[in-house]
Amino acid sequence: MEMPSVYFDRAVTQMSQLPGVGRKTAMRLVLHLLRRERSDVELLANSLTDLVENVRYCRVCHNLCDGDVCSVCSSPSRDKALVCVVEDVQDVMAIESTQSYSGVYHVLGGIISPIDGVGPQDLEIDSLVARVREGGVREVVFALSATLEGDTTCFYIFRRLAGLDVRVTTIARGVAQNERLEYTDEVTLGRSIVDRRPFKG
Amino acid sequence: MEMPSVYFDRAVTQMSQLPGVGRKTAMRLVLHLLRRERSDVELLANSLTDLVENVRYCRVCHNLCDGDVCSVCSSPSRDKALVCVVEDVQDVMAIESTQSYSGVYHVLGGIISPIDGVGPQDLEIDSLVARVREGGVREVVFALSATLEGDTTCFYIFRRLAGLDVRVTTIARGVAQNERLEYTDEVTLGRSIVDRRPFKG
Repeated sequence: MEMPSVYFDRAVTQMSQLPGVGRKTAMRLVLHLLRRERSDVELLANSLTDLVENVRYCRVCHNLCDGDVCSVCSSPSRDKALVCVVEDVQDVMAIESTQSYSGVYHVLGGIISPIDGVGPQDLEIDSLVARVREGGVREVVFALSATLEGDTTCFYIFRRLAGLDVRVTTIARGVAQNERLEYTDEVTLGRSIVDRRPFKG
Repeated sequence: MEMPSVYFDRAVTQMSQLPGVGRKTAMRLVLHLLRRERSDVELLANSLTDLVENVRYCRVCHNLCDGDVCSVCSSPSRDKALVCVVEDVQDVMAIESTQSYSGVYHVLGGIISPIDGVGPQDLEIDSLVARVREGGVREVVFALSATLEGDTTCFYIFRRLAGLDVRVTTIARGVAQNERLEYTDEVTLGRSIVDRRPFKG
């Protein structure tokens, strides 16, 4: 498709590099931007430049942050001896929004997945082991996806932590809130029976 | 959801202003950008700034262009007496990519749609009438969507052009290429019978 403007063409090409954005969607987005106020588009462009110039990863847990150490790691009210292992920063945000966790995090930056060519050396596993080895960590909680890759990653880290004086736990799996038993898959239902807990009336 | 970085938060907020991009998608896009090379993100940001600073609308047909008059209107090989009326610049690109049209365009910038509050005064209809009134236009071809809004817009413009010395046509409607008759809707099929053409064996 011949483009009426080199600037339009360039913007479409750049937008179509975004994941899930094809050339037609990119064109629609750019046409939308052309209809917006010029200052609005400059705000968007500047926010992206500021993003790559200013966002850092926490030296301790590899969560996103603006400085050297993230807000969770630097908070005096968080329990530094309780470390939750997550795949990426979105998981940190998801757990934070539950307001049910008072410990700190360790962001792996991915999950072991041979099919995607991601091995243990591509993830922040050595730094987790070092963190535990340095002492002061009482418990490591796995909060990884309930998938084959998640289980593999948990198992690999568990073995790496063997012999160190740390408790290793994993978040509970079971029937989700508001989920009907008849629609729960067999593995989940079976596991939720095995992992049954005392009923608090 | 508490944000770990003000710059991250700002970029997510800006991206979520794009049409069809919710907050979760925006977060996914921004995390993707953080994994890209810094120079790639700067290319994207600059392409958007350049876009709003440089893209103009053609003085004659309101198509996108980088200068004062678009590449179609300024081409010596195009028939300036044949004017195709389209809803927006995407339609120009679609028709151009067919390589079946040698005339010029007139981009309305929308379509008459009372439900969306778009009336004739919001569109480039006065400028089309003026363009025809000035002379030199032999034929106006409507290439608008085959919808109620498209038909309304065609009819409105047709009445505005009444009395002027210009031929008014509309693109053919009928059975699409590779479409099976049994799946063609009744209105289209009926119209394609009424509008039948001599068969060229």
